[in-house]
Amino acid sequence: MLDKVIKSSGLFQDHCHVAQNKLDPWKIEPSKASKDCRNFIREIVDNLDLQPNPEKPVIALSIGDPTIYGNLSPSPETVKAVISIIEEGLCNGYAPSTGYDYARAAVADYLSYDGASFKSQDVILCSGCSSSLELCITALADGQRGHNILIPRPGFPIYRTLAETIGVDVKFYNLIPENNWKIDLEHLESQIDGNTAAIVMNNPSNPCGSNYDEEHLRNFLEIAYRKRIPVIADEIYERLVFPGQKFVSTASLQSQVPILICGGLAKRFLIPGWRLGWIAIHDSTGAFENVRKALISLSQRTIGSNTLIQGAIPSILQNTPQSFHENLSNVLALHAQIAFDYFTVIPGLTPFMPEGAMYMVVEVDLKHFPEFESVLQFAKRMMEEESVFCLPGECFQITGFMRIVLTVPQEVLEDACERIAEFCNHHYME
Amino acid sequence: MLDKVIKSSGLFQDHCHVAQNKLDPWKIEPSKASKDCRNFIREIVDNLDLQPNPEKPVIALSIGDPTIYGNLSPSPETVKAVISIIEEGLCNGYAPSTGYDYARAAVADYLSYDGASFKSQDVILCSGCSSSLELCITALADGQRGHNILIPRPGFPIYRTLAETIGVDVKFYNLIPENNWKIDLEHLESQIDGNTAAIVMNNPSNPCGSNYDEEHLRNFLEIAYRKRIPVIADEIYERLVFPGQKFVSTASLQSQVPILICGGLAKRFLIPGWRLGWIAIHDSTGAFENVRKALISLSQRTIGSNTLIQGAIPSILQNTPQSFHENLSNVLALHAQIAFDYFTVIPGLTPFMPEGAMYMVVEVDLKHFPEFESVLQFAKRMMEEESVFCLPGECFQITGFMRIVLTVPQEVLEDACERIAEFCNHHYME
Repeated sequence: MLDKVIKSSGLFQDHCHVAQNKLDPWKIEPSKASKDCRNFIREIVDNLDLQPNPEKPVIALSIGDPTIYGNLSPSPETVKAVISIIEEGLCNGYAPSTGYDYARAAVADYLSYDGASFKSQDVILCSGCSSSLELCITALADGQRGHNILIPRPGFPIYRTLAETIGVDVKFYNLIPENNWKIDLEHLESQIDGNTAAIVMNNPSNPCGSNYDEEHLRNFLEIAYRKRIPVIADEIYERLVFPGQKFVSTASLQSQVPILICGGLAKRFLIPGWRLGWIAIHDSTGAFENVRKALISLSQRTIGSNTLIQGAIPSILQNTPQSFHENLSNVLALHAQIAFDYFTVIPGLTPFMPEGAMYMVVEVDLKHFPEFESVLQFAKRMMEEESVFCLPGECFQITGFMRIVLTVPQEVLEDACERIAEFCNHHYME
Repeated sequence: MLDKVIKSSGLFQDHCHVAQNKLDPWKIEPSKASKDCRNFIREIVDNLDLQPNPEKPVIALSIGDPTIYGNLSPSPETVKAVISIIEEGLCNGYAPSTGYDYARAAVADYLSYDGASFKSQDVILCSGCSSSLELCITALADGQRGHNILIPRPGFPIYRTLAETIGVDVKFYNLIPENNWKIDLEHLESQIDGNTAAIVMNNPSNPCGSNYDEEHLRNFLEIAYRKRIPVIADEIYERLVFPGQKFVSTASLQSQVPILICGGLAKRFLIPGWRLGWIAIHDSTGAFENVRKALISLSQRTIGSNTLIQGAIPSILQNTPQSFHENLSNVLALHAQIAFDYFTVIPGLTPFMPEGAMYMVVEVDLKHFPEFESVLQFAKRMMEEESVFCLPGECFQITGFMRIVLTVPQEVLEDACERIAEFCNHHYME
């Protein structure tokens, strides 16, 4: 009987030639959501069809992963904390979908400074900050209701990817290069409409490396307050600012604006692969009461982040010495200064000195590089000739700029800067 | 100027009483998706408002986490593998969103047995099997196109949660208790309609503990083949079957049906909190060509699972001795036999002997327990009197049954069975 079924249907491979034609061919179309889930950086980079110069080793100033070259590593305290947890054997089972209470409490403490105040129930642990952002956007914005969210331009394209996957439109608000990439507040306000469900802001910024001061943040929040639009604050580079700079968290301003703050261990603790992100709910008015429930509901889909890292969070946050963070800031500031000094004297380039995060934006004055129609073409040719690659501003929705990653070792950065100088000198036209 | 803005808007807390009334109150409604993202087990359990008997320690036979009591732990090889990776310090950065190639290759090897054959590019690593299921359902089914997916009844409610969150309907197909919970194939076929995007099957089954034989699986696949419906095979309990049983993977049958197989390290390696799941793409016809791309796209939203565990996968899969798996099977089979022997002689209960996974389903003949309208009420009262809690079948979309978790220590299981016997003897009516 079974054999008969098999032979008549052509289901199993030995028999497939016999009966396959009796049925229509398979037609499986993937969902709209999966088609709308685009990786904009990859699309652009793949489209460039990059070919490095085989005679020069490749330097990727394009990859925002501080751990690649091995010059920046997590603290010994971080490593020890996770090993202890594994050896104890108490964090192998499921955690609550929002995370262990004591891990949430440790994050709440860690984020309670300069007047900000969080309790454990304000914190939801996620599988990386991307997952935090996904939960926040999904909780607040609704494709079916025609919602949009406002996102910064230039900005990291994950916000757009996450929104469009669930059918939510994005509208861009401008950052002002000559004003340290502060938000163009008038433009921001003009973009808000009756369907705006949230404003995403990112401070310190990828790609800009800007670090907003208190006054600017207050002015930004005043618009959100007046327009009654909740804020998603991507603070993944929280306190990762250069010496002399002060990071101001949106929560420390104690505004009446409901804010979902996204962050994680990735950048400041140099462990992006460990996928430990969080949402911290700042809500002094109770306006987020239902959103809080929504976030908890959504966390139950995939049950949060790895329990070994969760278990280690209290030790990681409490025992990593301040000197570790200072060292990272010093290295990034030094690299920023080195790159800035190089780019300042390269004809046709104008660097923007960052104040935090891990990146520098450089303007490329294309009227002096008439061979290239865009920074896309400029970056492609620089790879072909000098084997140095930087992400064109198009990856961040702007033209005429490129982004430099500052986390590579100093000698690699210097080598790259020299090659960029050579490239520019070669192609520059008065 | 700044002060003026603050005072006039009432934005910051010190001034909130002055100007708050000038603006409408905040009205932030969470998204439909978050409202549709329901935890059915929690809703039912919370609604029961459980109150244990304060004189008896609580035994939760309800929680499907094998690690809770500490009697079941990961192998020393598993623990050592992760510690090595942490100490090496090479897996702290971002992995590709689908996982490290060598980790994907190790999973492909691990799943290539009994004729099944996978390559690394057929495997996508995810943050736990829940995340694997989420990607598969999201890639195949489309709320906007009115799609539905078919899911088993009884079955684990995560399928429904994941589908409904993205607006996809679910339709249930029945499993047949008296036929070892095999699929009612006629009923399955009758449920398929023009909007059916996928059939979810789960083998071995939670809650049933069934383990389908080759003939049943072939008959199941024949329907999917004839109706041209792709399959999502939840094989998270893959090879976790009792002595004398043989697990047959859907992939080993080498059918022409395109199948997305979901699995992970959670159950067989006793590390559910580590959140390492996978999708293995079985596609002998090429029908999944675009679905494969869709899964890769969707993986980019949250960038996969923890890199420490990914790095340890080859060692975990290759070095965990067969004796570890055999011991787990032996313990589960012993516990199943103990529970079965108890329940067989308890008046009003009929146990169904499982063949794999970690659970046993027990029928509760309510006509002999006339005090209770449902197993919900039966389970609630058993908690109140005996401090033993089992999940009512309602958590798995059926009535008249309850599910027992078999992973608790033997003495705890025996204590629980004795208390259940006492409860039933007390309430049983001829």
